[in-house]
Amino acid sequence: MRYTVLGTGLMGAAVARALVQAGYEVSAWNRTPGRAAPLAKEGIVLCATVDQALRAGDAVILLLLDRAAAEDALRGHEGLLAGKDVINLMTGLPEEAVELAEATASAGARYLDGAIECYPSDIATEAALINCSGDAQVWSDHNKAIKAVAGRSAFVGTEPGAANVLDAALAGTFHSVALGALCEAFSFLRASGIDPSRPEIALDYWLDFLKEEALGMAKKLEGDEFTTVEATLSVYLAAIRQWRHTMLGVGQRASLMTAHMHNLEIAEAAGCGELGFLSQVTSTSIQRS
Amino acid sequence: MRYTVLGTGLMGAAVARALVQAGYEVSAWNRTPGRAAPLAKEGIVLCATVDQALRAGDAVILLLLDRAAAEDALRGHEGLLAGKDVINLMTGLPEEAVELAEATASAGARYLDGAIECYPSDIATEAALINCSGDAQVWSDHNKAIKAVAGRSAFVGTEPGAANVLDAALAGTFHSVALGALCEAFSFLRASGIDPSRPEIALDYWLDFLKEEALGMAKKLEGDEFTTVEATLSVYLAAIRQWRHTMLGVGQRASLMTAHMHNLEIAEAAGCGELGFLSQVTSTSIQRS
Repeated sequence: MRYTVLGTGLMGAAVARALVQAGYEVSAWNRTPGRAAPLAKEGIVLCATVDQALRAGDAVILLLLDRAAAEDALRGHEGLLAGKDVINLMTGLPEEAVELAEATASAGARYLDGAIECYPSDIATEAALINCSGDAQVWSDHNKAIKAVAGRSAFVGTEPGAANVLDAALAGTFHSVALGALCEAFSFLRASGIDPSRPEIALDYWLDFLKEEALGMAKKLEGDEFTTVEATLSVYLAAIRQWRHTMLGVGQRASLMTAHMHNLEIAEAAGCGELGFLSQVTSTSIQRS
Repeated sequence: MRYTVLGTGLMGAAVARALVQAGYEVSAWNRTPGRAAPLAKEGIVLCATVDQALRAGDAVILLLLDRAAAEDALRGHEGLLAGKDVINLMTGLPEEAVELAEATASAGARYLDGAIECYPSDIATEAALINCSGDAQVWSDHNKAIKAVAGRSAFVGTEPGAANVLDAALAGTFHSVALGALCEAFSFLRASGIDPSRPEIALDYWLDFLKEEALGMAKKLEGDEFTTVEATLSVYLAAIRQWRHTMLGVGQRASLMTAHMHNLEIAEAAGCGELGFLSQVTSTSIQRS
């Protein structure tokens, strides 16, 4: 299998390098040829034109700056995509993946979408993750190469947008908000004269505890198990009000805590007060009437 | 050392049991004697009155429903506290800990505050945590017993309110908000037809990644290291806007994501755009003019 990588920024270069190391033939094109030059020494065939690059590969990996850059690069070369596989590793909106899947099909090519969930420096490791979605046959034909790029990669659904939905949900709504919450906590501790990096602050305790609870919640969710024999949602809400009061009292803005309180208040108003904390998942959609 | 436990609800009973198992003499009192009765079979001396209970111990552990219940129980018995140690394991506001420390000092007793950061079922395990603050000598005299109750327990500061500040920051602002963010992510995935408990969703990946990033951020914070060679705060803000747009597009309220975006917008307006994500900690306080 011969791969063409379009775009050799930090991530594109790391992906091209991982594929060569895994024994694949790799050609690459970059808008600014000078920045790609060092890759030639690593066995990657640098192409002067998109045309040349597309002809050199059976599958085309898109890792340009964004969708507009990808459209610019491919414009006028659609004929060369026929019979090939397009693997789009740029993360974007789910609807963009759907549109690109349709455009690819029109050009006679198959489409796989992927969202890279790690840093360029993690590429080519066992722990790195690319979530893929779209054509299951393309996944099946290329998953060996994709796993050489990121060992934990997985196929998450046949909807082309599924990888981007997962990215928005887990990289965005969960991971990024959790780190934002940590920043609010850090700020609050600094204002209280407590250095959160001190070992007795036991930050690792909270991260291990979070993992345990999060995996338990996923299991409960699977069974639509919203009742509880432990603290009810209303009991959590009371605790959250007290914690927020403490933060406001020392001049913290407590923005995430306030939004969190608001979510639980809406869940309580929706009748979840005597259910468990997890039951709030049933009341976070906007009702359209 | 003889301990008196006031309040034998789920947590009080677990603490009393752990102390007896560790070889200490334990007396207990509960407002509703019937509920405490089974503890007698486990070697705990049940007392009919607060007076009797206070006389039986060198240190008094408070685990009543709340501060009002503790004040009710101790009213009129303050004289019996002289020369003893009061260990308050009820979590509350930092200023309540300060007030109780003062009242305890007036009664001629020493004070240690503690915030229990685990479930009753985790008591008497190595991994369980009670954060303690206040009189360092009291911690020194009782930490063996406290660690028998919760193995990872630590002394976090001489300010009596420090354990409650840490509780609001880590149990509240970090842990609880992170689980709330997970609920928003779960709700979004369900609405998109993706079951988050499926193994290929790789929830464990995100929790391990979060731990790695959080510990790295604490280290950077220690050195006031707010610059970055990776993605800047403005780059994160752009990603968060896109993720939020994706969520709103499928009818999710995205409350935490909106508050998170707001925090980064304020940080960007405060001049942190070209710094790292962590630099937002410098702009979460309310400026009083």
